[in-house]
Amino acid sequence: MLEYVCYATLFVCDISRQSLLQRKATGSKVGCVSPSKLVISENKYLLNCGIKVNFCLGVLWLGNSVIPGSPDVISHLQKIGKRVFYVSNNSSKTREEFVSKFSRLGYPASKVSVSLFTLILIIQFMLYFNKAVTFFVHCTENILCTAYLTACYLQDICFKKKVYVVGSKGITDELDATSIKHLDVGPDPMCSDMTTLLKNEVQLDPDVGAVVVGFDEHFSFPKMVKAASYLRQPDCLFIGTNTDEVFPSEFPLTVPGTGTFVKAIETCTNRQAFKIGKPSPYVCEAIINRHQVDPSKTLMIGDRQPVPRNVFRNLQTGFHSDVILAYDSFSLTLAR
Amino acid sequence: MLEYVCYATLFVCDISRQSLLQRKATGSKVGCVSPSKLVISENKYLLNCGIKVNFCLGVLWLGNSVIPGSPDVISHLQKIGKRVFYVSNNSSKTREEFVSKFSRLGYPASKVSVSLFTLILIIQFMLYFNKAVTFFVHCTENILCTAYLTACYLQDICFKKKVYVVGSKGITDELDATSIKHLDVGPDPMCSDMTTLLKNEVQLDPDVGAVVVGFDEHFSFPKMVKAASYLRQPDCLFIGTNTDEVFPSEFPLTVPGTGTFVKAIETCTNRQAFKIGKPSPYVCEAIINRHQVDPSKTLMIGDRQPVPRNVFRNLQTGFHSDVILAYDSFSLTLAR
Repeated sequence: MLEYVCYATLFVCDISRQSLLQRKATGSKVGCVSPSKLVISENKYLLNCGIKVNFCLGVLWLGNSVIPGSPDVISHLQKIGKRVFYVSNNSSKTREEFVSKFSRLGYPASKVSVSLFTLILIIQFMLYFNKAVTFFVHCTENILCTAYLTACYLQDICFKKKVYVVGSKGITDELDATSIKHLDVGPDPMCSDMTTLLKNEVQLDPDVGAVVVGFDEHFSFPKMVKAASYLRQPDCLFIGTNTDEVFPSEFPLTVPGTGTFVKAIETCTNRQAFKIGKPSPYVCEAIINRHQVDPSKTLMIGDRQPVPRNVFRNLQTGFHSDVILAYDSFSLTLAR
Repeated sequence: MLEYVCYATLFVCDISRQSLLQRKATGSKVGCVSPSKLVISENKYLLNCGIKVNFCLGVLWLGNSVIPGSPDVISHLQKIGKRVFYVSNNSSKTREEFVSKFSRLGYPASKVSVSLFTLILIIQFMLYFNKAVTFFVHCTENILCTAYLTACYLQDICFKKKVYVVGSKGITDELDATSIKHLDVGPDPMCSDMTTLLKNEVQLDPDVGAVVVGFDEHFSFPKMVKAASYLRQPDCLFIGTNTDEVFPSEFPLTVPGTGTFVKAIETCTNRQAFKIGKPSPYVCEAIINRHQVDPSKTLMIGDRQPVPRNVFRNLQTGFHSDVILAYDSFSLTLAR
C-alpha cells in the first residue's frame, strides 16, 4: 500500500480480466492488489492532490469494447477540473479518427464527432462563431497519438525530404497535415520471385530521407527490402512509432504489433530506430512542451509494468507514473 | 600472426571485396591481414597438420557467383585426402538442390548433377552397378544445409505432429523425405482487412505441433499472425533454421535474412526459437554424430567473426574454428 501511495499512483484497470489472465499465463509482469485497497489508495491520492493534477491515460478500450466504467471515470476527472490527455501508441489513426472513436465509445472528451456531416456543420459554424475553432481544436489537442507525434517530430527537426512509411493512412494523413512529403502506403505484396523483385521491381526513390515504421497489416517482404535498403544510407532517419510487440486483439490469436515490425527492420539493418510513443522520452517532451504541462503534477497511467514507472520516473521528465493491473478498478472507483 | 596460427586457422576469403567494404562501413566486426601473412600462415598450418583434418566450409559463393579460386582450393583439399563438408545456413534448398548448384558452379564435390536427364541416367546406372549408389549418396551426405538439419532434428526428437513452415519448398521437401507432416508453403498475402483476416481467414490446424521459421520471400502479416498464434501453445515447438540477419545479395539492396524473420516471431511471441544452423550447437552435434567426425581434427570455416570462434570453441564441441575476412585469400592460396 505505502509503496503505491508514495508513488502518487492512480490505479487503472487492465483491458479485461481475460487479458490479465493471459498476460499472467505468458509471464508478463503484472501487479495486482485487492479491490478494497484500490478504493482506499485512490481516495487518499485524490484527497491529497490539488486540482491542477493532469491525467495521461493509456488504456481505455480493447478493439471496439470499452473497459466498463472508464468513460464515467474520465467524465468525473474532468468534472473536478482535471485536464485529461489521451496518449495512444496506435499509429493507425489520426487525431480526428480518435475523436470519432471517443465519441462512438462514449468518452466525454469526444464532444465533437468528425463524421462528414458533423464536419460540414462545424465548418459552417466556424464561419460565424470563432469560438467553434477553439472548441474543435480542444477535441484533438488532448489526443497524442503516435501518427501525429511522428509528424510533430519531423516538424521539430525541420525535415524536408520524403518519408517511406511502413504503416497505414493514419501516419500519412498526419504527415499531409504538416506538409511532409511521403510515399504511399497500402498493400505491397510479393508478386514475383526474389531475383525479379530485386532486379526489376524495387526502385528506390532518391528523395527519401526517412523511414517511419508503424503498425502495418500489409507488412510484407518487399516492404522490408525497401525499408532496409533506404536505411543503408547512414543519414536516412529511422523512426519507429512505438515498441508494443503485440497488437491487442479480441480474437484468440496473437497479432504482431508495431514493435515486432520495428524489431524486424532493426535486425536486418543493424540500426536502432528512434522511438516516438510510450515509453520513449519523446512523448513526454511533447506533452510537456506542446501542452504546458507540469510533470510534477501529472500522472501518467498505462497498462505496462514496470516499464512506465522506470522510464517515466527516471528520464528526468518528472512525471508521476505507476500502474496496477486490476481488471475491475474502474468500476470500483465509481462505487467509492 | 601467432594468434591465428595457434588457433589452427585456415584463412578463407569473404564473399567479395565489395561485401567486405560494406561490412566495414556498417560497423560489422571483421579481421583482415595482409596477403603475404595469409600465405605464410596457411602454409604453416597445412604443413603442421596430418592428413586426417576435415574442412567444414561456410562461404563459397554469392548468389550465382563463385568466389574466384575457391573450387580449385576445394579440389586441392580433396586431392590431399581431406574430407570436406559443406555447411550452409540457406534453408531454401534441399541437399539435392545444393548438389546441383555445386555442379553448376564447378565445385569438385558436385560430381553428379541432378538435372532430370542426369537423374534418369544415374537411376539406370544404379540398376547395373551398385557402386553408383555409394557415389550418389556421397554427393549429398557431405552437404549439411539447414532444411535437411531441421528435418534431422525433428526426426531426432521423434516428432509426430504437423509443422507450420514459414519458409520455402527446401524445408518441406526435406520434411517429406523424412515423412514429417507439414502445411504448405508459398504466398499467403494480406487480401482483406485485419478484422476479416482474424475473424474469418485464420483457421489454425489443431494438429500443428511445431513452427519452423526459415528464409521466406513470401513473409507476410498473415503468416506472422499464424506462426505467432500457433506458438501461443507452450508445447508448440519453435524452430529457427538460422540467425543470419541479412540474405547475401548481388544487388545494392538489403535483403532481410532468416534471422530477421525469426527475430520478428520471437518478438511478438516472447519466446526464443531453437536454432539449427551455424553458429548453434546443433549443427556441430549433427556433424560429429552423423559423420563420425573428430572435432579436434576439424576446421570450421565461416565468414562471421568473432561469433564462430567463440561459439564453436566454447561449446565443448571442440572444433578448431576461426576466420579472417580477406577478399582475395583463395587466389593467394592457389599462388603459393
